[in-house]
Amino acid sequence: MMELSKRYGVFLLLICLFLSLASQPSLARPSRKLKPCKHIVLYMHDIIFKGNNSANATEAAATSPVGLGPFSFGQVSIFDDPMTKDQNLHSPPVARAQGFYFYDMKTAPSAWFAFTLVFNSTEYKGTINVMGSDFIPAKTRYLSVVGGTGDFFMTRGIVELQTGGFVLYEYFRLKMDVKLYECY
Amino acid sequence: MMELSKRYGVFLLLICLFLSLASQPSLARPSRKLKPCKHIVLYMHDIIFKGNNSANATEAAATSPVGLGPFSFGQVSIFDDPMTKDQNLHSPPVARAQGFYFYDMKTAPSAWFAFTLVFNSTEYKGTINVMGSDFIPAKTRYLSVVGGTGDFFMTRGIVELQTGGFVLYEYFRLKMDVKLYECY
Amino acid sequence: MMELSKRYGVFLLLICLFLSLASQPSLARPSRKLKPCKHIVLYMHDIIFKGNNSANATEAAATSPVGLGPFSFGQVSIFDDPMTKDQNLHSPPVARAQGFYFYDMKTAPSAWFAFTLVFNSTEYKGTINVMGSDFIPAKTRYLSVVGGTGDFFMTRGIVELQTGGFVLYEYFRLKMDVKLYECY
Repeated sequence: MMELSKRYGVFLLLICLFLSLASQPSLARPSRKLKPCKHIVLYMHDIIFKGNNSANATEAAATSPVGLGPFSFGQVSIFDDPMTKDQNLHSPPVARAQGFYFYDMKTAPSAWFAFTLVFNSTEYKGTINVMGSDFIPAKTRYLSVVGGTGDFFMTRGIVELQTGGFVLYEYFRLKMDVKLYECY
Repeated sequence: MMELSKRYGVFLLLICLFLSLASQPSLARPSRKLKPCKHIVLYMHDIIFKGNNSANATEAAATSPVGLGPFSFGQVSIFDDPMTKDQNLHSPPVARAQGFYFYDMKTAPSAWFAFTLVFNSTEYKGTINVMGSDFIPAKTRYLSVVGGTGDFFMTRGIVELQTGGFVLYEYFRLKMDVKLYECY
Repeated sequence: MMELSKRYGVFLLLICLFLSLASQPSLARPSRKLKPCKHIVLYMHDIIFKGNNSANATEAAATSPVGLGPFSFGQVSIFDDPMTKDQNLHSPPVARAQGFYFYDMKTAPSAWFAFTLVFNSTEYKGTINVMGSDFIPAKTRYLSVVGGTGDFFMTRGIVELQTGGFVLYEYFRLKMDVKLYECY
């Protein structure tokens, strides 16, 4: 009987240890290998305002380049861009990306972004707030999801950016892999 | 005795299971129904600089609208606004809101905000950092609290915005319900 | 034997209680006294563009002061600054700080910052995203680390700022104590 109770005790101890360790925040935190709790793929379409295309434009420069290198250093642009589920600019938007970016390198095209993804559809209602640096020559760039509201209450994660296509000074399309690792 | 030790063991097991599950981060995370760990209600007062009101002004436009629609698209404004506990502009400020916003829609008055709430009183010392989209026609809008320092070390949460009053091109007041769900 | 199994049980119970409590998120969260999981000290060097120093400049004003007080209220500056491990501007950079700041007070030199620390060395690859208010007269100021990518995946924390030196309108150096309290 002692044997039995001993074995039982050891078994219990192992379960407790396992469960307790498994639930320690420092160990249970999502690692780089963890799967996101939510993964949304969207395409952002940005049509640059050139003074005579008010009907279509979704972005406009608020300041001019300052003359520090050939990559528009200092130009701040503000946007309210439609987000679609596929690459087609004319697909029905499922969200808007509202925010700004500016060019910030002398030697390469590189931008710094901060924006809000605004969802107001039957699928999602709420916002996802994003910021980070976008070194455009890299195939994939990574921004931070720093918060959210509504269906994305308090979320955190990563946005993976890829340039989907562009026409210089007219249009660009960004593929966004929104990977959320904290969902409530 | 075996009975006793068995029952005791089962009791132990249940306690362990309960405690371990209760402490799993994925389960213990705040849900949308969870109460904030801190709730602060403040009123932000913004007096627009018009060139001749330096003494009172708390906000100034750093860029001009770009002419994309009638809602000041592209105008960037910078502010250092007093925050009071009630609606009265002349109440003693308990914090400052320091940051910027810009108008970013062609078809409606809508702004994007990023700012820091700076507390330096006997009640609180520290900062709360906030960003998000403010679709002004909506009765309530939601921004993200993305971090904090001092008494608000590492905090996260939501700011609920409501327009409290405004005089076009002169003054506006925002009611802010600062709801913090992570307090350290 | 009962004694033994009882003692064993009590011992187990205590272990379980301890481990379970220790792993409760609300208790295990980093407090103000907790040590950072990572602490990086860097010096940011900012050389202001004056129209004729393209070769050296790392920062440029995108807008002009608006005339609200003597402390450049409304001036927005964009930077891509080298970060070194010691105070020497000519030491090999180990990261870049890419982002912007603007002056936002009538009565004192005070700035609001948002930027990304971009690491691309053998030691670290990834980014740290930062925002907050910088009241320059204070000896130490505190910004929020609101997210990260790569080696700094999902990180959060605090940046402590100290002015290391400056030449008005030409150069400034900021010491940054990057203290991360969430590491994955």
